[in-house]
Order: sequence, then C-alpha cells, then structure tokens
Amino acid sequence: MKIGILGTGMVGKTLGTKLAQLGHEVKMGSREAGNKEGAAWAKSTGKGAAEGTFADAANFGEMVFVCLRGDAALPVIKGVAQSVPAAQLKGKIFVDVSNPLDVSKPLPFPSLPELTNTTSLGEEVQKALPDSLVVKALNTVNCEVMVNPAIVNGDSDLFICGNDAGAKGKVSEVLRAFGWKSLIDLGDITNARGTESLMPIWMRLWGHFKTPHFNFKMVK
Amino acid sequence: MKIGILGTGMVGKTLGTKLAQLGHEVKMGSREAGNKEGAAWAKSTGKGAAEGTFADAANFGEMVFVCLRGDAALPVIKGVAQSVPAAQLKGKIFVDVSNPLDVSKPLPFPSLPELTNTTSLGEEVQKALPDSLVVKALNTVNCEVMVNPAIVNGDSDLFICGNDAGAKGKVSEVLRAFGWKSLIDLGDITNARGTESLMPIWMRLWGHFKTPHFNFKMVK
Repeated sequence: MKIGILGTGMVGKTLGTKLAQLGHEVKMGSREAGNKEGAAWAKSTGKGAAEGTFADAANFGEMVFVCLRGDAALPVIKGVAQSVPAAQLKGKIFVDVSNPLDVSKPLPFPSLPELTNTTSLGEEVQKALPDSLVVKALNTVNCEVMVNPAIVNGDSDLFICGNDAGAKGKVSEVLRAFGWKSLIDLGDITNARGTESLMPIWMRLWGHFKTPHFNFKMVK
Repeated sequence: MKIGILGTGMVGKTLGTKLAQLGHEVKMGSREAGNKEGAAWAKSTGKGAAEGTFADAANFGEMVFVCLRGDAALPVIKGVAQSVPAAQLKGKIFVDVSNPLDVSKPLPFPSLPELTNTTSLGEEVQKALPDSLVVKALNTVNCEVMVNPAIVNGDSDLFICGNDAGAKGKVSEVLRAFGWKSLIDLGDITNARGTESLMPIWMRLWGHFKTPHFNFKMVK
C-alpha cells in the first residue's frame, strides 16, 4: 500500500521504517522537501522509502499517519487541507497518532490543553479534513511498542476509534501486521477524548517504571 | 480502627460495609445526622456501624474516606475544615476516593472540570485540609471492585498517591485487607491528576464492556 507519514520525529521514523519493512511504499513529509531528517531516513531505510513535503506525503498515501507534535498537528493538517486537491482527500484514511501534549513543560508533568475536556485532537483533525476518514490509534503507547507490541509482556490492549468502520478495518489490518492482537474499538472519533486523556497517567507511569515500554491491559 | 465515611452513596455504603465486616468501627457522615440513607445503612450493617454528620464522621475516624460526588466533595471538605477542631484534623488520614466528574452530563460522556489540567480534586482536598494527610486511592475502580478486586480476573493494579509515606502505608494495609495485591505508588498528591484523568476512558470502557467490573493492569 502507499503510505504517507506526516512528521520526521521518532514516531514518524519508527512507523515509517516498520511500514517499509512490511513492504509498503512510504513517503515521509515535512515542512520542506529535502528536510535533513526526512532525507536521512529515506536514505537509511532504502527500498520503499521516500520523502517530500507534508502535502506530497498526504497526496501520496492511501493511508496517512499523523505523527506530529501536539502543538504542530492541527496547523499542519489545516495546511494539508488547503494544499492537497479535495478529490485526493476524499475518503483517504488519516491515522492520528498524536497527543495534545504541551511539550514545553518538563516531564513528568505535561499538560493537556483545555480543549481535551470538550473535544480532542482526533476530533479536530477530523473537522479539518471533513471528507477524509480519521482513525485515532497508537497514541497510547511508545513508538517502539507501536511497531513491536511483543516487547511488553503478554497481549496488552490497543485502543482505536473513528467514525468509519471500513477505515478502522483497514487500519486494524496494519496494526495486526505490527503484531497487535487485542484491539479495543471504542466507537466514533469523540472517543479520542478518552484515549488522549491517558497521557497524564502515561507520563507518570513512564517516570515510575523508568521505561516507556509498558502498556495497559484491560482485565475483567 | 475507627473509620469515618463522608457520603452515603453507593461508594460510601460499599466501603463502610466492607470495613465494618473487617472489624473496624465505622461512622458514616452526611449533611444531617439521622439522614435516611445513613440510618438505613447503619441499621442493616449492625455491629460496628453508626452514622452522624460529616463533622461527626470526620471527628470520629482515625482514617476518613471521602466518598462524595465530584461537585460536592470540596464544599463538604471545606465545611469539615471549619467545623472539626484543628487538633482533631492534625495528622488525620483522609482517603480521597472521589472524581471530579460532572454527573449532570449523560453517560458515557462525563466531563472533567477544567481544574484537572492544572490541579486535581485530590490536591484541592489536601489544600483544604493542610494539616491532614490526604491519600488518593480507589478512584479508578467501581466500588464493588474496590472492596473485592478478585471479581476482575488476575491481579490488576491500584494506583495510590499522597504526600506522606506513613499515611500511604496505613492506607495500603487497609487496601491489602480488601484483597489488593498490586499497588502502584505514583508519588505525591499531584499525581492525582494522572489517576483522575483515567475517568474519560474508564467511562467509555464501562460502555464498551457493558459492566463496571473491569480494571487496568500494567504490563511491561
């Protein structure tokens, strides 16, 4: 499948590399084509890896992963909505992996912006791309766990939500290829309020466990 | 031990009954002594159970459980701080079980008031009782799970936080008597921001699982 990645940080690179290894064609997008991080990633990843602007990556992918910092995600998505032809955005799947964290605050006390109480970044991304199909997933685990869930013991759970069942099904196939066995579909995109609100305890557990390689498993 | 319970709802009654069964002397407090719910609970529970005002219960208990609705918790605690002698409050343990949920909104979409981003109910309770020792615990599980963690499969985790290690130790003894084997001490009371922020996903998982008898287990 053709996959776009928005963002050249740890999350984008880790997802992009895994997706290329799985045989997908991956284009990583950043503010400028030829961006140092993106070009280095494309070169080191080799087969199936390319880079360009955010618009290039969004245009290219049948499925586009949003791997942006909390404060950058919405401005970039709004730019994509303006610069990519509407026909290209219609029905395209965007997987929103980002969290509305204010990373300017020192760990382990990130703050969630006020919007989390009455909306969520996932919902705002969907509003900015009304003809696309936004799926929120992977935002509750560290990027190394995203692509290799077996590094935490047992089959832990991954939360997924979005308005379109078909899109969630396609994203679930990719997640299963990463190794995820237990996906909990919470329902429509408003449930991103639930998964994004895991960040305050996630950051504290990171400090407590002294490793980001952990996850939630629901027991009942 | 002498234990006070603030609140006559499901949580207060369930905790009070279990504590009386474990041999503690329990006084349940409400707005007025002789309150219908409190009196019925004391009568049906029998040995070790009594009721009175919030101040009576706070005065009586060596350990006091705050089992109040999100919007009622702080006003009641501020009333207790004014009506109970300072010498009685000094060093007394308050276990804050409450969550800052706006229960006026229909399930499964409760909202957390804005204060959760920069403070927490646990911290506000501690501020209102500066000479007491506030421990946040049990607020991340349904009340039947609180007193009988074995009703969910496996040993799931209970989060605890507070400023005083000795108080957390004493509360942990009570929690172990309830059956809790895995307690995760997150640190000081500011970590209540983490555990209270579990509510948005907790409420959604309640809807998803169609039972409140579930819990989080951390795997790593």
